[in-house]
Amino acid sequence: MAITADSSVGLVDARGADVVDAVEDVARRAKIASRALATASRSTKDAALGALADALVAATDEIVAANALDLDRGRTNGMAPGLLDRLALTPERIVAIADALRELAGLPDPVGEVVRGSTLPNGLRLRQLRVPMGVVGMIYEARPNVTVDAAGLALKSGNAVVLRGGSAAASSNEVVVAVLARALETQGLPGDLVQSIDAWGRPGAVALMHARGLVDVLVPRGGADLIRTVVRESTVPVIETGVGNVHVYVDASADPAMALEILLNSKTQRVGVCNAAETLLVHTDAAADFLPTALAALGEAGVVVHGDEATAALAPDGLEVLAATDEDWATEYLAAEIAVRVVADLDAAIEHVREWTSGHTEAIVTRDLQASQRFVAELDSAAIMVNASTRFTDGGQLGLGAEIGISTQKLHARGPMGLAELTTTKWVVHGDGHVRP
Amino acid sequence: MAITADSSVGLVDARGADVVDAVEDVARRAKIASRALATASRSTKDAALGALADALVAATDEIVAANALDLDRGRTNGMAPGLLDRLALTPERIVAIADALRELAGLPDPVGEVVRGSTLPNGLRLRQLRVPMGVVGMIYEARPNVTVDAAGLALKSGNAVVLRGGSAAASSNEVVVAVLARALETQGLPGDLVQSIDAWGRPGAVALMHARGLVDVLVPRGGADLIRTVVRESTVPVIETGVGNVHVYVDASADPAMALEILLNSKTQRVGVCNAAETLLVHTDAAADFLPTALAALGEAGVVVHGDEATAALAPDGLEVLAATDEDWATEYLAAEIAVRVVADLDAAIEHVREWTSGHTEAIVTRDLQASQRFVAELDSAAIMVNASTRFTDGGQLGLGAEIGISTQKLHARGPMGLAELTTTKWVVHGDGHVRP
Repeated sequence: MAITADSSVGLVDARGADVVDAVEDVARRAKIASRALATASRSTKDAALGALADALVAATDEIVAANALDLDRGRTNGMAPGLLDRLALTPERIVAIADALRELAGLPDPVGEVVRGSTLPNGLRLRQLRVPMGVVGMIYEARPNVTVDAAGLALKSGNAVVLRGGSAAASSNEVVVAVLARALETQGLPGDLVQSIDAWGRPGAVALMHARGLVDVLVPRGGADLIRTVVRESTVPVIETGVGNVHVYVDASADPAMALEILLNSKTQRVGVCNAAETLLVHTDAAADFLPTALAALGEAGVVVHGDEATAALAPDGLEVLAATDEDWATEYLAAEIAVRVVADLDAAIEHVREWTSGHTEAIVTRDLQASQRFVAELDSAAIMVNASTRFTDGGQLGLGAEIGISTQKLHARGPMGLAELTTTKWVVHGDGHVRP
Repeated sequence: MAITADSSVGLVDARGADVVDAVEDVARRAKIASRALATASRSTKDAALGALADALVAATDEIVAANALDLDRGRTNGMAPGLLDRLALTPERIVAIADALRELAGLPDPVGEVVRGSTLPNGLRLRQLRVPMGVVGMIYEARPNVTVDAAGLALKSGNAVVLRGGSAAASSNEVVVAVLARALETQGLPGDLVQSIDAWGRPGAVALMHARGLVDVLVPRGGADLIRTVVRESTVPVIETGVGNVHVYVDASADPAMALEILLNSKTQRVGVCNAAETLLVHTDAAADFLPTALAALGEAGVVVHGDEATAALAPDGLEVLAATDEDWATEYLAAEIAVRVVADLDAAIEHVREWTSGHTEAIVTRDLQASQRFVAELDSAAIMVNASTRFTDGGQLGLGAEIGISTQKLHARGPMGLAELTTTKWVVHGDGHVRP
């Protein structure tokens, strides 16, 4: 989506009252629809997820045809091949998307879980129950599979969803939302549970950000600009997702082979994702042993290295180490690039991470118990890995079953967000005529 | 505080860069100070709370003298007697405030609690731990006891706090914050754990609302205008507190005596608080029996009644029932006033609450199991009471031990917020060289 930090003020001024009315009407219908779902049983919701999956597969031709329009427009606009690939929906991909919905049906229902409960000395019976949020707003970029993912996660957790997808996927999203809404109605559920506001363009997105009281939470998924804009503009509570300036620290006591394997997995297993490593810190006592091999391996894997002087001095012949600047320490490359720094000790490593991290994930490779404990206790990120790849910060990998995003904020959800993170709680108190003295 | 919805845009324009720098510097020092506390043991924190309590009592003369300046200014400015009373600090009140700190020391430490944990099939050991937020911002109105409360809750939960109190209590708050900071230093903890930005006035408050990344959460406590402004202006995540348009519904099957007792307790036990009832709904089948007695009792208690026609028709002789309008259904009186409506059935009661509630607390009085279950399931408020007074929506009453406010939003915290709600979580993952295949 092209809402950027610079353009958003203009958007606010440009939005007409009619757009605000229209989007608020969508949100209001979503809220009403959500009530039918809030008290629905798990079996009703799971059956609906199966029906959505079947309907998507049945509509393959229609979806692929709409997607072709988006792809054509993308090619005309000079969209990069990687982005075109993420935009493309094939019959195989539609089957995979449908299968993901069926897997959601297999997960436990978060709604109704008793989070806390007790009987007070005065006899009041307390339960804190997990209940749906109500209406979840989702603002995201080009990938049309997110449309289905978000609808499925919202449905399973008992919520209605209002979707604002990227204009690049507008035709695909329009058809997909229509298919999902029709399928819900065949299950006796309101089609308004899944609605899109793409028709109202950017002013519609801004109206969604201001629909406080109608929309219970807004989840932006996309690049840093998109997320920044939503955070600044929104009066609806936002869960910030995804920016990961992720560090791997190789301690003096690290097993070098383990350190190398974790480094390569963290950096190269997939480079364009938020849990990929962006900076390597190496204890000075391990540097002479570890770095020449590690730098060679990174080079072989096609990773561009930005390093400090100590790193450059240890580079194997023929490997170019670009001089690292503060910008490198700050950058989430999301590419085959890494920043490397030799640090005097654990304190210096912790100091570096504190200064530059985005608070997503940090890993230490060590055999020293105290070093591992200090790294865990003194760093303040959503996930800390001890002798494990940073790539494990992922809802699927951590056993949450599904993931709507990875929160890098501290409020409500931190780290991978699954179904439970799309719920809130309600206190239910039973008395026998209890009053306060 | 006089920051209102209307004036805040002007505030943003008026803030000078120097104020922003100064407030960001305060927040940065708070963040650094918070690190010392994040890893502090419970015994260190509890000892510090005791030291704060002792220091406040020891500084009674100094605090009372500063408070006298605030009171003088308040009287000169024509402050209402009720507000003057809330502003006043006497030696007895200082003892009570200090005792509250000592009670906090007796509560369990939320930090370090393992919220979830498991060993995955691949051998990764997962723990999701409760950890401090880091820096808590607090924007509140005239009562200087909130200064100590907020500092104590933040300290116990391992957080630094940045305080913006009302200008009416500026002299009291300045002395109190200085006393607390000095006492922390005598305990070997950074004085920067408790700081005030009152010196920078309203532009300072706005700068605090924009200190995203430096301040982890902002809790506004005060009137609806203050809260609305903070919600709209802030880019720091906000927990909205306190507006309670609270309903009591008397079902057809209710025990009339129990209903009366719960109604009177909910409405009159204390009228100026967010968990006091503001609207009474009565099932039409119970109205003829219940309402004449209930209206007479409300009248005797000095409560002004706004009612619909059916209510007015049932009023005892001599009791005036003002005609209720939509404004009455929407109003949180916070006073000895109530809106009363006769409803056709449970559906109509639920419909009314859905339309007008602020989502704080609703109560049903009933002997009908199904009615109680539907009321609990179909209403979406932070707390639902069955045969109990609405006044139980309170951290102390629900056994949370302490309360920083009552959240009426769905994100992060809902209902009374205790110490746990001032924490976030961190995933800690231990492997043995695990990488993603």
